Amino acid sequence: MPTPNRSIWPHPTKLQTAQIVDQRWLPHQVVIADLTSVQETAIAIKDMWIRGAPLIGATAGYGMFFAIKEALQTDQPDTTFQKLTQQLLSTRPTAVNLHWAIDRQQKAINQANSPEEKLHIAWKTAGEIVEEDVEICRKMGEHGLSLIESIYQKNPNQPVNILTHCNAGRMATVEWGTATSPIYHAHQKGIPVHVWVDETRPRNQGARITAWELQEAGVPHTVIADNVGGHLMQHGQVDLCIVGTDRTTYTGDVANKIGTYLKALAAWDNGVPFYVALPSTTIDWEIRNGVEEIPIEVRDDEEVTFIQGWDEESQQIKKVRLTPAESPAQNYAFDVTPAKYVTGLITERGVCEASEAGIKGLFPAVKS
Amino acid sequence: MPTPNRSIWPHPTKLQTAQIVDQRWLPHQVVIADLTSVQETAIAIKDMWIRGAPLIGATAGYGMFFAIKEALQTDQPDTTFQKLTQQLLSTRPTAVNLHWAIDRQQKAINQANSPEEKLHIAWKTAGEIVEEDVEICRKMGEHGLSLIESIYQKNPNQPVNILTHCNAGRMATVEWGTATSPIYHAHQKGIPVHVWVDETRPRNQGARITAWELQEAGVPHTVIADNVGGHLMQHGQVDLCIVGTDRTTYTGDVANKIGTYLKALAAWDNGVPFYVALPSTTIDWEIRNGVEEIPIEVRDDEEVTFIQGWDEESQQIKKVRLTPAESPAQNYAFDVTPAKYVTGLITERGVCEASEAGIKGLFPAVKS
Repeated sequence: MPTPNRSIWPHPTKLQTAQIVDQRWLPHQVVIADLTSVQETAIAIKDMWIRGAPLIGATAGYGMFFAIKEALQTDQPDTTFQKLTQQLLSTRPTAVNLHWAIDRQQKAINQANSPEEKLHIAWKTAGEIVEEDVEICRKMGEHGLSLIESIYQKNPNQPVNILTHCNAGRMATVEWGTATSPIYHAHQKGIPVHVWVDETRPRNQGARITAWELQEAGVPHTVIADNVGGHLMQHGQVDLCIVGTDRTTYTGDVANKIGTYLKALAAWDNGVPFYVALPSTTIDWEIRNGVEEIPIEVRDDEEVTFIQGWDEESQQIKKVRLTPAESPAQNYAFDVTPAKYVTGLITERGVCEASEAGIKGLFPAVKS
Repeated sequence: MPTPNRSIWPHPTKLQTAQIVDQRWLPHQVVIADLTSVQETAIAIKDMWIRGAPLIGATAGYGMFFAIKEALQTDQPDTTFQKLTQQLLSTRPTAVNLHWAIDRQQKAINQANSPEEKLHIAWKTAGEIVEEDVEICRKMGEHGLSLIESIYQKNPNQPVNILTHCNAGRMATVEWGTATSPIYHAHQKGIPVHVWVDETRPRNQGARITAWELQEAGVPHTVIADNVGGHLMQHGQVDLCIVGTDRTTYTGDVANKIGTYLKALAAWDNGVPFYVALPSTTIDWEIRNGVEEIPIEVRDDEEVTFIQGWDEESQQIKKVRLTPAESPAQNYAFDVTPAKYVTGLITERGVCEASEAGIKGLFPAVKS
């Protein structure tokens, strides 16, 4: 089977069905899963068959199509629709895009009159969310490309070394990725790039997914333990950091995968530019102080105490225990990088300073 | 079998034999190995059956006993002794204690006249290195205890939260550990302590060894991914960091397990005291600038691309692949934390500032 070019798409032959890459088995196996119901969509989001803020939004878009479809088959469509919407909302508490996509679908569906029209508008809106995400990521890539180009022009004899954390790539969005979009754009333009891929414990989205995406696209890269980035920056081996974000305050504080803050500190200490790529849908217009106010998801301890990998002996994916059986573990999934350590934000409207002035300069109409 | 109290000891019944815990299988299996030759000792150091600067020194002490014993059985004892000494020296390039212990044994052996006397003095010196290490770690514990006590006295209603990276514990020394010695001293005195244990990728010495040691000693602790410490410090959940070191410059720059630098930055950013515990044998009196001058060991990529854990299904230790088969990896084993981010050094002679003045204040006679 050829590697899918996108992370989510309408099923090519089955009506009212979406397909996703079930990312839990990457890079060892490329598994495609059908989504046909709210229940399946909620499991896919909650159990992280898919992850990444934009892709969670796109997947929830299809989830809302299933919600209205299932509600219309009951005696109490309004109550059922509300209940199913709640079920989708509760899957990932930190994801702003989840709320955004669900709101958008609710408004679209409410504008329709007949049951048939509701179904059509929900399917259409799901598709629009997907296509808009592709376009947004493409634009971020164009804006971020200029940052990579200007580093390359200063020293055209060597590749531009970019460090990234977690997966803000193709499999976190629909296509292109957020943090990886400038990298793909540079690579396509012939600018030599090399990516340091943080493995990103405990779920290893970097080692498993970002490395796989870059490998598939032929972009030179090297996987490193999360502990290594500081050392590389001390020794001039990183020209630029680009990461994604799950939620950014309108003041520029960045909630992203746990450990992002440590890399931002190292970048700051060594004068390495630290950029965050984000679609404006991940901006939280209510929160001023990210460290104090953004709730941090705590996930299952077993993500720390066990790890999954490919057993070459049995040619199977296997889970092994890493810690003493009696030792407890704690699993905070995100941290917040204060705006002062962020050089700039790469958005679909351009690059801006990580500050209220910078963000409102690009997005003046969103909130006053 | 009861858990051994030390990491290395003379065999209780076999002559001219030392025993170690083969730490590669911790925490899943406690394997004891005999050392009877230079070859076995070199493998144990190089392949990390044992690790940790002080324990590498203590093990090399016995290695030098085997070296003189084997040399005396040949026609060219002097040449052979030199060759075997070289073999031991080449096992771990970064370890200052390795050089120190080998030098000390060479001097001791050279003072003896008869072959029999050489054997006796080498065995005795190996034992002395071991006992001195125990005493040095005990003293570091007493000095470090005062730091924990003073935090506890300010807020006696809650445990003192201490973060540590890698393993600077019992299994990195002979007994007590360096960074863990103050913790054990506090625990024995009835001061409630809780330790955040960085798992310490790629070799997971924290998750495997420090957690196991603390669990065996009944000290409350929680294993975390290396990415988590910054978030904990932002939220007041760390009162104190204590780590070990493989090499410290006389100016106070600290080479320790990769990732230490990132924790020091987070501690600095959040006003958390960051202490390094070290026996004075790990001070390098030649190097002024740690970041520029300390050579950093690069270890096998497979430590990053594969991981070992306990397979509960087969009840065996298993190695699984974490990354795409085609993705390269890079494995720097240490980094250097500049002295400005180190609050103080805990030594066998007391606590001092991480600076030339601080270090020479405690150790004036070592170098002028």
